[in-house]
Amino acid sequence: MPEVVFGLGKTVDHVVAIASKLLDHDGNVLITRATQAMAERVLHDLPGAEYFPMSGAIRFWRHRNVTGKGTIAVVCAGTSDIPVAEEARVTAEVMGNEVDSIHDIGVAGIHRLISNHARLSAARVVIVCAGMEGALPSAVGGMVSVPVIAVPTSVGYGASFHGLAALLGMLNSCSSNVTVVNIDNGFGAGYVASLINRL
Amino acid sequence: MPEVVFGLGKTVDHVVAIASKLLDHDGNVLITRATQAMAERVLHDLPGAEYFPMSGAIRFWRHRNVTGKGTIAVVCAGTSDIPVAEEARVTAEVMGNEVDSIHDIGVAGIHRLISNHARLSAARVVIVCAGMEGALPSAVGGMVSVPVIAVPTSVGYGASFHGLAALLGMLNSCSSNVTVVNIDNGFGAGYVASLINRL
Amino acid sequence: MPEVVFGLGKTVDHVVAIASKLLDHDGNVLITRATQAMAERVLHDLPGAEYFPMSGAIRFWRHRNVTGKGTIAVVCAGTSDIPVAEEARVTAEVMGNEVDSIHDIGVAGIHRLISNHARLSAARVVIVCAGMEGALPSAVGGMVSVPVIAVPTSVGYGASFHGLAALLGMLNSCSSNVTVVNIDNGFGAGYVASLINRL
Amino acid sequence: MPEVVFGLGKTVDHVVAIASKLLDHDGNVLITRATQAMAERVLHDLPGAEYFPMSGAIRFWRHRNVTGKGTIAVVCAGTSDIPVAEEARVTAEVMGNEVDSIHDIGVAGIHRLISNHARLSAARVVIVCAGMEGALPSAVGGMVSVPVIAVPTSVGYGASFHGLAALLGMLNSCSSNVTVVNIDNGFGAGYVASLINRL
Amino acid sequence: MPEVVFGLGKTVDHVVAIASKLLDHDGNVLITRATQAMAERVLHDLPGAEYFPMSGAIRFWRHRNVTGKGTIAVVCAGTSDIPVAEEARVTAEVMGNEVDSIHDIGVAGIHRLISNHARLSAARVVIVCAGMEGALPSAVGGMVSVPVIAVPTSVGYGASFHGLAALLGMLNSCSSNVTVVNIDNGFGAGYVASLINRL
Amino acid sequence: MPEVVFGLGKTVDHVVAIASKLLDHDGNVLITRATQAMAERVLHDLPGAEYFPMSGAIRFWRHRNVTGKGTIAVVCAGTSDIPVAEEARVTAEVMGNEVDSIHDIGVAGIHRLISNHARLSAARVVIVCAGMEGALPSAVGGMVSVPVIAVPTSVGYGASFHGLAALLGMLNSCSSNVTVVNIDNGFGAGYVASLINRL
Amino acid sequence: MPEVVFGLGKTVDHVVAIASKLLDHDGNVLITRATQAMAERVLHDLPGAEYFPMSGAIRFWRHRNVTGKGTIAVVCAGTSDIPVAEEARVTAEVMGNEVDSIHDIGVAGIHRLISNHARLSAARVVIVCAGMEGALPSAVGGMVSVPVIAVPTSVGYGASFHGLAALLGMLNSCSSNVTVVNIDNGFGAGYVASLINRL
Amino acid sequence: MPEVVFGLGKTVDHVVAIASKLLDHDGNVLITRATQAMAERVLHDLPGAEYFPMSGAIRFWRHRNVTGKGTIAVVCAGTSDIPVAEEARVTAEVMGNEVDSIHDIGVAGIHRLISNHARLSAARVVIVCAGMEGALPSAVGGMVSVPVIAVPTSVGYGASFHGLAALLGMLNSCSSNVTVVNIDNGFGAGYVASLINRL
Repeated sequence: MPEVVFGLGKTVDHVVAIASKLLDHDGNVLITRATQAMAERVLHDLPGAEYFPMSGAIRFWRHRNVTGKGTIAVVCAGTSDIPVAEEARVTAEVMGNEVDSIHDIGVAGIHRLISNHARLSAARVVIVCAGMEGALPSAVGGMVSVPVIAVPTSVGYGASFHGLAALLGMLNSCSSNVTVVNIDNGFGAGYVASLINRL
Repeated sequence: MPEVVFGLGKTVDHVVAIASKLLDHDGNVLITRATQAMAERVLHDLPGAEYFPMSGAIRFWRHRNVTGKGTIAVVCAGTSDIPVAEEARVTAEVMGNEVDSIHDIGVAGIHRLISNHARLSAARVVIVCAGMEGALPSAVGGMVSVPVIAVPTSVGYGASFHGLAALLGMLNSCSSNVTVVNIDNGFGAGYVASLINRL
Repeated sequence: MPEVVFGLGKTVDHVVAIASKLLDHDGNVLITRATQAMAERVLHDLPGAEYFPMSGAIRFWRHRNVTGKGTIAVVCAGTSDIPVAEEARVTAEVMGNEVDSIHDIGVAGIHRLISNHARLSAARVVIVCAGMEGALPSAVGGMVSVPVIAVPTSVGYGASFHGLAALLGMLNSCSSNVTVVNIDNGFGAGYVASLINRL
Repeated sequence: MPEVVFGLGKTVDHVVAIASKLLDHDGNVLITRATQAMAERVLHDLPGAEYFPMSGAIRFWRHRNVTGKGTIAVVCAGTSDIPVAEEARVTAEVMGNEVDSIHDIGVAGIHRLISNHARLSAARVVIVCAGMEGALPSAVGGMVSVPVIAVPTSVGYGASFHGLAALLGMLNSCSSNVTVVNIDNGFGAGYVASLINRL
Repeated sequence: MPEVVFGLGKTVDHVVAIASKLLDHDGNVLITRATQAMAERVLHDLPGAEYFPMSGAIRFWRHRNVTGKGTIAVVCAGTSDIPVAEEARVTAEVMGNEVDSIHDIGVAGIHRLISNHARLSAARVVIVCAGMEGALPSAVGGMVSVPVIAVPTSVGYGASFHGLAALLGMLNSCSSNVTVVNIDNGFGAGYVASLINRL
Repeated sequence: MPEVVFGLGKTVDHVVAIASKLLDHDGNVLITRATQAMAERVLHDLPGAEYFPMSGAIRFWRHRNVTGKGTIAVVCAGTSDIPVAEEARVTAEVMGNEVDSIHDIGVAGIHRLISNHARLSAARVVIVCAGMEGALPSAVGGMVSVPVIAVPTSVGYGASFHGLAALLGMLNSCSSNVTVVNIDNGFGAGYVASLINRL
Repeated sequence: MPEVVFGLGKTVDHVVAIASKLLDHDGNVLITRATQAMAERVLHDLPGAEYFPMSGAIRFWRHRNVTGKGTIAVVCAGTSDIPVAEEARVTAEVMGNEVDSIHDIGVAGIHRLISNHARLSAARVVIVCAGMEGALPSAVGGMVSVPVIAVPTSVGYGASFHGLAALLGMLNSCSSNVTVVNIDNGFGAGYVASLINRL
Repeated sequence: MPEVVFGLGKTVDHVVAIASKLLDHDGNVLITRATQAMAERVLHDLPGAEYFPMSGAIRFWRHRNVTGKGTIAVVCAGTSDIPVAEEARVTAEVMGNEVDSIHDIGVAGIHRLISNHARLSAARVVIVCAGMEGALPSAVGGMVSVPVIAVPTSVGYGASFHGLAALLGMLNSCSSNVTVVNIDNGFGAGYVASLINRL
């Protein structure tokens, strides 16, 4: 299990101090929701950091043995959802999983969905990130027989209400294999997918 | 154009009186959202009525000439959405359209969607009724290049919030050819579809 | 996999017809959200039904081989949450799992939580049903290292807003191993837990 | 059909790259919701662009043949609604339509409404953009017998809740010929109006 | 000033006792929101009562001198809004005003609005009751130069959210002479209109 | 009647042009919700402007004859509500009224309320601006027998939800002489109060 | 401390069984939110019960020694709030407190408030129950220097949204000595007041 | 009692003037929600100020005699909640109380909760600040038998809706000894806790 630091709302000093202490131990360390300033300090002060600017993740991936028993597919509906998908992927990887990232498939393009059927079916767990109407988890859920973790994203405008539309859509999914995490919570989806993939 | 009486919140006497007066003229008459008691009185008092108990529609279809230039497809996601779809169909028919009703296709069953591709593509306008996550209009919208009118239904429970989840989903549809009417407003969808099909 | 009929919003005739047809095949059949009247007809017409009046579940459990690899714990916070927990349990059982039901533990009674530590830790997946403030999944999530599926229930009054308070609480859980399903969706939780336990 | 790039949430580089590739083909290209920086780069790098700063639209209008069978009227209630109306107009034009823009008529000024009766009646489809109470589509809807596409705008303050008041008003319109798109979604309205006008 | 008893949530006994005591004095008495049972008891026990079943108002109108300086117009959009308009009228009358009731004019029928211009302009205060999109007060407000009191009604379904859509619309009215009272609060509108008309 | 320009969402050029044109006529002109930049340009370009920076009002008060028949009291609960009260006062004055401004009285200080009883009672109309719990209109309403116009303000934090708490409180006022305008709409309150005071 | 049974959502059998068992011990027992049927069975089966039909409380008050150090005032705004106030009083009494019940004082009647100043000031803790705009706790809070526990009630209609308006008002109280419990939660207010009065 | 100045929404000049005047008297003075600029001016102009930058509190603690009869525990769930806890502590101290601050215990870490049992039990009143799911007050409430004041914080993202999730959770707490104040209202919690501790 990696140690995880949630960067949102913490000071740069605070995050560097916590991360530094955690790195004294031998495990992997993941910082999520780091600001640009946080990332610059961490990259400067602490060796071995990878930085993912879209999602604000910083990873110290020191042990790369794969412990997950299958592949985790991380699917996203549009390019604007990629930051959330990235957080999910980075988390799943640092927790010892092979990840297959599938971008830019949506319910409005059924043929692209179907052309990814094999990759989706090969996964042991599927994470689906989508904003706007949040319909993709239902469609993917109907194509696979494994657990699907749906991540509503705050992508959209107007009546998307910062992800609320997508969240409600996913909670009402007609596919029985879908569970949901908080809006933009790529980390949580990656974490639970890793727990499932370890079983 | 048929004359339309909106039954909700009116008394039985009131509805019978209005309908009776409208029938003095020569056109078609449609009563929507009639209660069971309303329907019984209308069927008893006014000749020529057809009653549709699922949706509460009562129709006096005296002129059946088809004025719509193509077919209107009325699609619904689940059996619980059929009452709303019925209201749309009954409206579109009484306004002079051929209707193709396609039931029980949802985003969780993509193959059923695809197997209806020809029927959907044959329509000049498509009405899609769906509750719960309300994702079906986006998927259908991606399959056709004609206007899609989405009707959120109040089908669902918990976080469907009586159709709000479906409504928000449809307003945020990633398919550009989708417009939306009020929750459970099958009549409105049938009406606008008829206007479009007449053009 | 059992065949599942969602009873809510269907007519008695419809449910009996569907169930009857599904029973022609050899598998298990589960009807959820059956009304009292539905249950009476089903029990009268179709042999082999078990009825669970609290949750409205009807089960035809014809194949009872256990295919789940571990135990699924179904936890609930108060006696009013039991109907939802029952739906989860009945679903998980008919899908081939051993279930350990743990009732009436809440965050206001930490010692009861701790005294159930061994049973919780023995589970391969944990389902937690809670209404009101919906805090139990976070506490249970911190005690186990397996996936926790949280089911908000509509139990409560006033500012519980029919389960919304519990739903929001669970989506914001500080335990990273928690995912959420719709309000009162015991079936969904049992279904996903079964998929996970099968891996 | 033009190719469309939704600018919101994309990087400048991304948008330029996508637009550049689309321009290799021979069709019209529309970029919506471009930021100021995006527009500057596009105007600098890609020849033939028109920029509409109020709405953030960028248009490569290479084929100007009119394919729409009638006029699309684009109506807006106040000067603050013009950016949304502009997005609708730019979209409808690039999709081959004659557009008649009618600004600054509102339900509080019925005589101005009536004095525009002829222009409204001449349209084959009407788009109505309005914020605040969002009442204009109902009034216009009562004056014409063609489809009306209502666009709620986020114009207003306080209890307008960023367009929610207008959105709800339009969904509850007492004019049966009104359908609704997302808040500020001028593009969607222009797109659907074009589909209708092509029939 | 009449004495007023708000019937909602009180017992029959309670209401009769209060009204009886108030009638010992010499003034007018108004009971609002009386249930059917309440009305029957009041009509049986207390002489001189008029009962208005649509609105549930009961009136003891013992002094009928007109103290208001002009006419109060009470306008409503549809027949379903009449109960609320009736409560406003009954209140204004018992407080000493001439009332001009104008029913069934809506923004979707501008010509009917205009044909009532003279009656509207003759009023010293105007009350407008409307459900659904609640647009009528803005249109009326633009036609008169006196204060307009808007009463949102709970008439509608789906996204009317029991009057919320109409309420928000009225609060965002583009007519500056509009103020708003609670949903279905015909009494309050009649009361304030009477205060204004007395000035 | 003054001419009024609503500054919010307009450009500086636009506002200056409109105001300049209106000033060609002989009446008073009021600009509301002007930004700092707008005010600077107006003060520089157009002679005779008064600027009120707290509320963003700009006034050309060329005719100062008093046409209101009594005094309008403008009351506010706390110092943070003063900008809204200022907009109400500036509006009422430019429309020909004597205004009595009473600041900093709230329901938590009943004795201050009572010590202002005479001033409140002397008014012909009362405007009450309050944020947070929005309780002041009810208390003032109980102290006077004239119309009270309540203006919820967006003052507060957390569960004030930008004025929603105050708005709902005022709509549910137990004082029958209270009507409500939009959040922060001091202008509307001043406008309607002026209409009433003119009667 | 009394034993407490929350009746809402439990079966009659269940409540009788639990209460019966608790009565084997020597303490006081309180059942809250009992239905009519529950009350009838409890009164029939278990000796020593007092039933309070307005609030649905059932009390076994076997030990009546006063342990609270001062008086708890229970104030309510209108007669419709009395059931909630009753639940608070019954709870406080069974927990060993002297209670002073003050009914029917509201912010719209400041003189009634002031005439109760002495009784309010004599209390060691004050509970205030109010629906509609929920303003009373602020006014009472300004009159006393002890803790005030505010109970929003679901009394009201329209924009009271079942107590939400009162709840939000109380959370935003300008009196610093106010804390809030759930809508209609008279029991919780009585319970905490008792804890405070015991200190 | 200290004099309190609420800084939010006031100008720097205003705050300095008020504080300066209050300091002419002999008591303690507390400024809450001061901006950085406000703090700089106050520290420069007025001697004896302590500044707490996390919460924006400024304290003139001139009389440090302890008048509270016991200890007030101020508990917070995560490091992001510390600013709110700080405001509560600073308030309680300046009102004459010993405060025991307990940071970083949450429901996801039951063993840390239990290891603080003695400190929690030693308190006469407990303040609990928590964001996200807001579950901590229920857990703490179950561990102590004194009043618990819950402060929801705006810490979180997505479906925390700026503290709404925590607020609703706390209002629905299953621990009967919990009352709630506004989101982020550390001051209010410290104030009421001081009143209680003085009894």
